[in-house]
Amino acid sequence: MNIGFIGLGNMGAPMAANLLKAGQAVVVCDINAAAVDAAVALGAVAAASPQEVAAQCSLVFTVLPTPKHVRQVYTGAQGIMDGAAPGTFLVDCSTVDPQTARELIATASARGLRMADAPISGGTIGAKAGTLTFMVGAEAELFARLEPVLRHMGKNIIDCGGPGNGQVVKICNNLLLAISMTATSEAMSLGVNLGVDPHVLASAINSSSGRCWSSDTYNPWPGVSPDAPASHGYVGGGSIETVLKDVTFAVDAAHAAKQPLMLGAATQQLYQMHANSGWGTKDFSSIIQLYRKD
Amino acid sequence: MNIGFIGLGNMGAPMAANLLKAGQAVVVCDINAAAVDAAVALGAVAAASPQEVAAQCSLVFTVLPTPKHVRQVYTGAQGIMDGAAPGTFLVDCSTVDPQTARELIATASARGLRMADAPISGGTIGAKAGTLTFMVGAEAELFARLEPVLRHMGKNIIDCGGPGNGQVVKICNNLLLAISMTATSEAMSLGVNLGVDPHVLASAINSSSGRCWSSDTYNPWPGVSPDAPASHGYVGGGSIETVLKDVTFAVDAAHAAKQPLMLGAATQQLYQMHANSGWGTKDFSSIIQLYRKD
Amino acid sequence: MNIGFIGLGNMGAPMAANLLKAGQAVVVCDINAAAVDAAVALGAVAAASPQEVAAQCSLVFTVLPTPKHVRQVYTGAQGIMDGAAPGTFLVDCSTVDPQTARELIATASARGLRMADAPISGGTIGAKAGTLTFMVGAEAELFARLEPVLRHMGKNIIDCGGPGNGQVVKICNNLLLAISMTATSEAMSLGVNLGVDPHVLASAINSSSGRCWSSDTYNPWPGVSPDAPASHGYVGGGSIETVLKDVTFAVDAAHAAKQPLMLGAATQQLYQMHANSGWGTKDFSSIIQLYRKD
Amino acid sequence: MNIGFIGLGNMGAPMAANLLKAGQAVVVCDINAAAVDAAVALGAVAAASPQEVAAQCSLVFTVLPTPKHVRQVYTGAQGIMDGAAPGTFLVDCSTVDPQTARELIATASARGLRMADAPISGGTIGAKAGTLTFMVGAEAELFARLEPVLRHMGKNIIDCGGPGNGQVVKICNNLLLAISMTATSEAMSLGVNLGVDPHVLASAINSSSGRCWSSDTYNPWPGVSPDAPASHGYVGGGSIETVLKDVTFAVDAAHAAKQPLMLGAATQQLYQMHANSGWGTKDFSSIIQLYRKD
Repeated sequence: MNIGFIGLGNMGAPMAANLLKAGQAVVVCDINAAAVDAAVALGAVAAASPQEVAAQCSLVFTVLPTPKHVRQVYTGAQGIMDGAAPGTFLVDCSTVDPQTARELIATASARGLRMADAPISGGTIGAKAGTLTFMVGAEAELFARLEPVLRHMGKNIIDCGGPGNGQVVKICNNLLLAISMTATSEAMSLGVNLGVDPHVLASAINSSSGRCWSSDTYNPWPGVSPDAPASHGYVGGGSIETVLKDVTFAVDAAHAAKQPLMLGAATQQLYQMHANSGWGTKDFSSIIQLYRKD
Repeated sequence: MNIGFIGLGNMGAPMAANLLKAGQAVVVCDINAAAVDAAVALGAVAAASPQEVAAQCSLVFTVLPTPKHVRQVYTGAQGIMDGAAPGTFLVDCSTVDPQTARELIATASARGLRMADAPISGGTIGAKAGTLTFMVGAEAELFARLEPVLRHMGKNIIDCGGPGNGQVVKICNNLLLAISMTATSEAMSLGVNLGVDPHVLASAINSSSGRCWSSDTYNPWPGVSPDAPASHGYVGGGSIETVLKDVTFAVDAAHAAKQPLMLGAATQQLYQMHANSGWGTKDFSSIIQLYRKD
Repeated sequence: MNIGFIGLGNMGAPMAANLLKAGQAVVVCDINAAAVDAAVALGAVAAASPQEVAAQCSLVFTVLPTPKHVRQVYTGAQGIMDGAAPGTFLVDCSTVDPQTARELIATASARGLRMADAPISGGTIGAKAGTLTFMVGAEAELFARLEPVLRHMGKNIIDCGGPGNGQVVKICNNLLLAISMTATSEAMSLGVNLGVDPHVLASAINSSSGRCWSSDTYNPWPGVSPDAPASHGYVGGGSIETVLKDVTFAVDAAHAAKQPLMLGAATQQLYQMHANSGWGTKDFSSIIQLYRKD
Repeated sequence: MNIGFIGLGNMGAPMAANLLKAGQAVVVCDINAAAVDAAVALGAVAAASPQEVAAQCSLVFTVLPTPKHVRQVYTGAQGIMDGAAPGTFLVDCSTVDPQTARELIATASARGLRMADAPISGGTIGAKAGTLTFMVGAEAELFARLEPVLRHMGKNIIDCGGPGNGQVVKICNNLLLAISMTATSEAMSLGVNLGVDPHVLASAINSSSGRCWSSDTYNPWPGVSPDAPASHGYVGGGSIETVLKDVTFAVDAAHAAKQPLMLGAATQQLYQMHANSGWGTKDFSSIIQLYRKD
């Protein structure tokens, strides 16, 4: 069985490499010729278009930057849908809005294809180490088929229920993350402003009910989480712009579903304001700079 | 050594009982005669006023409902400050704003008394079980003296640094808690609204970066955390009104310190709006009712 | 010269009627046959499709409910673009997002057509009375050509600058309106809550710096503006859902332009929350019901 | 009849000067000796304390910076309450929170004195020109007595109803003003960002439903309102810090009255954030700098 892999960027390239390391036969495609060459050097076979990838594979992964690219690769000219034989499995690991995900899955289904969404978290470090988290939206049978393949690339394979649910879970998690990081920034800034040592404050919160991943693992105050970007000039990690994009997916999906999100909407604007101050490419924990007075 | 205990309400009464159980000699005072009788029945000695309590004790605890009561008991007529001999230790376990805490500590210091703030969390269940968390703001030497006594009433004794820091840590934790609970409510409502099972959603978040105490221990969606108030009609726990009071301490302290709190201020208003809809005495995780559409 | 008119709904029908009253030759089209019959009864000529309307007219107006309808009527099958001869003037009076407006105008321009956006305000009452406001985005020469025709339907013809600017001005005005109405609701609720008579409060504000259209003309407190919907059970006027739609255009356009809108985003969520409580079809001044405690 | 005047700052000094110009006998007091000398040079008589002012006058005005100063001058040592004979009229023109105003009025009443609150707007220019607006909270009979005297100092004397209502009206107006100015800043920034000329945009809004004092008289975009501070480097007018203080009175009074203020609370935080960026002493229309991207 050939596995197709379309999209060899910062995330996709190491993921494809891990499939090759695991002994899989991989057919790749990317608009960046250098990325294709690098994959071929590791044992992959190159194809000229998504259509040609699909024509040679019974399982195809895509890892692309935006919903627009995803739609193009699946349903555009020389796209996957044109090449895939009935019964082919398609797995989109990009982060897109749930509506786009569900529309594509329905289109695939109408053509006799089987499609799942499996957005990832864990960053480029996780992609290289093969320790990614996959949030999988798929029918139960398809999930069972995919899980062993995903294990070549990730450690935590979450079954989110039906098609599109992977994207929903991802945007809900990232919505909560974006708010928690901002809230942690408010709490840390207030406490330090009022005279408490940041290490003492974080330690107390982390043994109490305010505890969250943003306080105990990825604290935005420099030095509190020694391995986190906040302790290294806010370099690395998920950027302000990436988190802004994810929160925007959540806020837009909420609007379409008539779901109010008071804190989510405020957080989206705060990230935009911070991005406009020149912090867009820095780690998202730098949102604390909006608050610090020292 | 006699230990004084002023304030025998829902929290104070079981705390005093635990001191008595531990074999301490306790002198009590409360405006509620029945509460005093109950403590006497357990072995306490009654005193007629805070002044009289202080006159007989080398260590005095207070557990009172509002800053106004605290000021009255310490500096009002027949108050602690009038009765305490130089060198007496005073420990206020009430939740008050940091400014009030620091003013009282300064007043005590000027009179040769030694005072600490040690607000508590853990609720009435923790008070009875002796498993409270104390957030202690005290000079290092005083902290060392207090810790063994606090261990009769609590399990987690946190050294928050100097005087007033206990209150600062408490309001920072509770600020973060109030926002996290609201953010968890937004994320859970959005995900369920978009078709994901609440148990699956919570489970996925809890193994990812959105994880927080409000999602993994005290989830606001009914049934997700079986022991939490959300699974029992939002009865018990910390009420909407209590959390609103704590967030207000944080927002007011932030204003005095010129510290902006965008999410904290929005959260304060959301709790007020929810309290006005008749939910004021229910558990604070009921804030999710502002968001649920079903 | 024939004038085309596509979209004979609550706004379009009386607008077309006013053109007919002014002696213009009008060719109409709508999917609702009854609406077409009514226009024909007033002297209009019916056409079978937007394409056929465009083929017979040198100036075509459209008044349609959503951007999706607008795109369909202009660029869909049997659409305007297929029928219009080079040099035809096209004027879209629908409210759409500025990006859609500018894309369509560019498409028209590429085909040798001249297009303007001219969204309207003034409601069905203004449409019938011929007192609408048009916010016109057009090249100067085109504006000069259009103005006399628009005067048959409106009183206030605003030159907003170039193509697309009419939509921008409309969403900016409506963004400010939505926030002002909510802010007036907060101020009125607070003042009455604190014991001031609502008429006295509004009168004082209206002679001071808080004055705005929402306080002096369309006050949300019942009885203060006798002719406003607030004094008539919040019936009539622009609905909560319509204002929510307009604010959403503004927030989405702002996001695309990386423009933070803190109050706009919060207001959007408040209207959504209020719509979810069953107020969606009532006048938008009913947002005060989110705040009133009596 | 002597008129007392306590507080000869930027506002009080020209107000007292206008009373003197109108031929009134004025007894003054201020902790700033130079300010007292300047008033004496204009014909005033100096007194050593608020108590001595009150002892010599049947009507006393106060214009003081904060609630703390007001309480001190009325009820502190050598204060007004100690000197005033029963039946004396007291008028506080300071801006204070409604609760402080009502407590002082009740205290005065209990001592047989008659007190009104009459906060002012119009700035130092209005104070000098005698064109201030007074928002008067007083019993009807007292209002009738005060009005002719206030006309020596102001043009617009608003009867806000009973005691304390002047303060309520002032904070409600200023709450609405602070939000409107921020909302106007969002709308102007968005429109210009999307390509519309700021003069055209303001003009269109000002003939539509978004019209407000902040858009038509005091527009925050430089050059739109030629006489406004925005057109003169944001110098002059009411400062960011002053508006922040007023909004804080509103938010705090709302909290005490259990009145949610979503936009008011957000606006308070935005002014704090802006003040922290070094804009605290500039005109409050400079809040637009938080939003402008150019």
